[in-house]
Amino acid sequence: MTSPVRLALLGCGTVGQEVVRLLHEQSADLAARIGAPLEIAGIAVRRIGRDRGDLPVDPTLFTTDPLGLIKRDDVDVVIEVVGGIEPARTWLVEALRAGKSVVTANKALLAEDGAALHDAAAEGGGDLYYEASVAGAIPLLRPLRESLHGDRITRVTGIVNGTTNFILSAMDATGAGFAEALEEATELGYAEADPTADVEGFDAAAKAAILASLAFHTRVAAADVHREGITEVTAADVASARAMGCTIKLLCIAARGADAAGRETVGVRVHPAMIPLTHPLASVGDAFNAVFVEADAAGQLMFYGRGAGGAPTASAVLGDVVAVSRNRLAGVRAASESAYADLAVRPMGEALTRYHISLDVADRPGVLEAVAGVFARHDVSIATVRQGPAGGGPAGRGDDADLVIVTHVAPDAALAATVRELRGLDIVRSVASVLRVEGGA
Amino acid sequence: MTSPVRLALLGCGTVGQEVVRLLHEQSADLAARIGAPLEIAGIAVRRIGRDRGDLPVDPTLFTTDPLGLIKRDDVDVVIEVVGGIEPARTWLVEALRAGKSVVTANKALLAEDGAALHDAAAEGGGDLYYEASVAGAIPLLRPLRESLHGDRITRVTGIVNGTTNFILSAMDATGAGFAEALEEATELGYAEADPTADVEGFDAAAKAAILASLAFHTRVAAADVHREGITEVTAADVASARAMGCTIKLLCIAARGADAAGRETVGVRVHPAMIPLTHPLASVGDAFNAVFVEADAAGQLMFYGRGAGGAPTASAVLGDVVAVSRNRLAGVRAASESAYADLAVRPMGEALTRYHISLDVADRPGVLEAVAGVFARHDVSIATVRQGPAGGGPAGRGDDADLVIVTHVAPDAALAATVRELRGLDIVRSVASVLRVEGGA
Repeated sequence: MTSPVRLALLGCGTVGQEVVRLLHEQSADLAARIGAPLEIAGIAVRRIGRDRGDLPVDPTLFTTDPLGLIKRDDVDVVIEVVGGIEPARTWLVEALRAGKSVVTANKALLAEDGAALHDAAAEGGGDLYYEASVAGAIPLLRPLRESLHGDRITRVTGIVNGTTNFILSAMDATGAGFAEALEEATELGYAEADPTADVEGFDAAAKAAILASLAFHTRVAAADVHREGITEVTAADVASARAMGCTIKLLCIAARGADAAGRETVGVRVHPAMIPLTHPLASVGDAFNAVFVEADAAGQLMFYGRGAGGAPTASAVLGDVVAVSRNRLAGVRAASESAYADLAVRPMGEALTRYHISLDVADRPGVLEAVAGVFARHDVSIATVRQGPAGGGPAGRGDDADLVIVTHVAPDAALAATVRELRGLDIVRSVASVLRVEGGA
Repeated sequence: MTSPVRLALLGCGTVGQEVVRLLHEQSADLAARIGAPLEIAGIAVRRIGRDRGDLPVDPTLFTTDPLGLIKRDDVDVVIEVVGGIEPARTWLVEALRAGKSVVTANKALLAEDGAALHDAAAEGGGDLYYEASVAGAIPLLRPLRESLHGDRITRVTGIVNGTTNFILSAMDATGAGFAEALEEATELGYAEADPTADVEGFDAAAKAAILASLAFHTRVAAADVHREGITEVTAADVASARAMGCTIKLLCIAARGADAAGRETVGVRVHPAMIPLTHPLASVGDAFNAVFVEADAAGQLMFYGRGAGGAPTASAVLGDVVAVSRNRLAGVRAASESAYADLAVRPMGEALTRYHISLDVADRPGVLEAVAGVFARHDVSIATVRQGPAGGGPAGRGDDADLVIVTHVAPDAALAATVRELRGLDIVRSVASVLRVEGGA
């Protein structure tokens, strides 16, 4: 058999430990699939003495010197499961420039400065693979990067954050408010002690940037993504969605469009939205992830699975390790970054979407006329209107009424301007909620 | 720019025409993604004069000499969309031996004699890609072949035939019988004039063989697949499934197991089965396809999309064309067939499954005891029993009763033997239906 492919593992937390375990358990299969055995050359950690259970690995392989490990001549492939921008960027750029192949699960780094990594890979001639960075175990990036390369992708709509999907699913199932559902998610280990990255949509935005880059052959960074979290989604919003035959999901949406001059653009956004219960994404519950892809010839596709967790993420990491190892043995490089299309990123104001707006209005004649006038002035067409006594019940709240309006598709800027003007109307006591509606209900 | 990659297209029916159209419409994008333009060297057809609409292609490219076209030195990639065993096998073996790369959608040939193609590819050094052969546009084979190579797949459960899924979905939605639903499918173009290959499960069995080969690194042929069609599924079966919170789907199931000596085996089967409505495959309606994959580390994954049709199939074909073209330009070959595991194929009798059995029995004391005794003798454990007056209604059919039994998991041979013995029982007037239950309800 050929001499082994030597791996440097950076990080040995939940995912890293699972990678070590799978490398051990599957070693014969992996060797047969690659044509050479895999061997761990070293594992860089912050503290060597930390308890890592009964990890099936030679303890002398641990080191606190990641750069020293990366630079070793006998290291072929560097696996990074540390996360965060620095020092991961420095390490990976160093590894790629030195011609090593890199497998990483680091979505934040790829979304913040993927260009630095791709450029370093091109310089060194090694592979850069990152299947685990988006939607965990779901084989998604390779299909986008390879299988669908004969087609024209028009839109990618995804549920790519398990924590927020768990919270929204719980709110939908039990009628709980956001705070209560977050508490449950934290207790069950689905949310971290500081849930900001998840509930404010930062994690989903990083993944959206990576998906958009691959789908549209254009460099898209996290900063290009319009981002709204789920902290302001209320139990009333969820009930309102149900009444419309919808559910609320935190979606990442990357879509082609065109600017005023007719040039193709790409828009990328992350926000909670209502989607119809009949949409394939609506039934994606708990902490599962799913990504819905629309392409000219392929039509509608969906990829579904576990988006996080040690084992699923390690599965994706190892799939990449097999691929880059094979490439090294064959002396070849995978297709490099494809950014030839270089589309301009469309501002959020130009995104085409629909709004669901709940208003608390004065219960008197002429109110609907005044409200409808605001929509008309902004060239926003109304699809449905529902009026009822305030509070939804028959008792009501005296001289107030609820007014629920769903629009047709319009530019986000026009919809936002409509809501701003509604807020200023005398007869509008308050704008109870504003949610986008997606998925062609 | 580099000199073009030259394509020979064998066949110009629905899929072939769509391939030609996409090559034309997407030519700039495809060239950018590959690094060289694609060029059609020739199109082999049976009759040159046939009306093919306004196909954007030079009419002098058509030829009735496929072998002559394949052998031309200026042909790099051969695309086969003719289907059937011969002459496709002769053509593709010839092309592969001559070092051409081949992209084919021919599931029947791959399942019947994939070995001949893989061997010829190894001999010639070209690539053999066939994403379009299973589940049309859904990127499925490449994820199995590459993304999940770091994991251990334990089971693949798929809805891979659009015609039968359309028929069963219609039966479920309207209460129609098989014949009526088939008629509707034929009218709408979802079933062919001779629907045998679809409704008898031959098409699904071919796809099951291809999926099993990739998932388990073992050569599995169509002849290794246990196959049952849907022609005997009745409206009463569908209603009975509904009553259990299930729906009936034609499933292909490929699963690891072990023989009596503990050696690993693989079992592959195609048959209608009840699955719970909560299973992700249950909501796959109309002519859509979906494949559910279970792996040790990745957990549960699902791939969903259009399984057939000109454009979706052409999308998969072109994705493969981009991949093999890139490989040729880089002077490399993709990972070849992986059949190292070489697992034995398990006979159907050893498949572990559950049965749903409806009996028409004499309505008198001691019947359940007698029936239960038969199950016990075959070591089959009963999960649920439901007894009622015959015909389901309160009126009944005199002294008959309906007895519906659902078993726990048992070997198929034991379940089949149980049913055989039940049929011989005096008190059993008839075995109204026998259906397997899958998906862990």
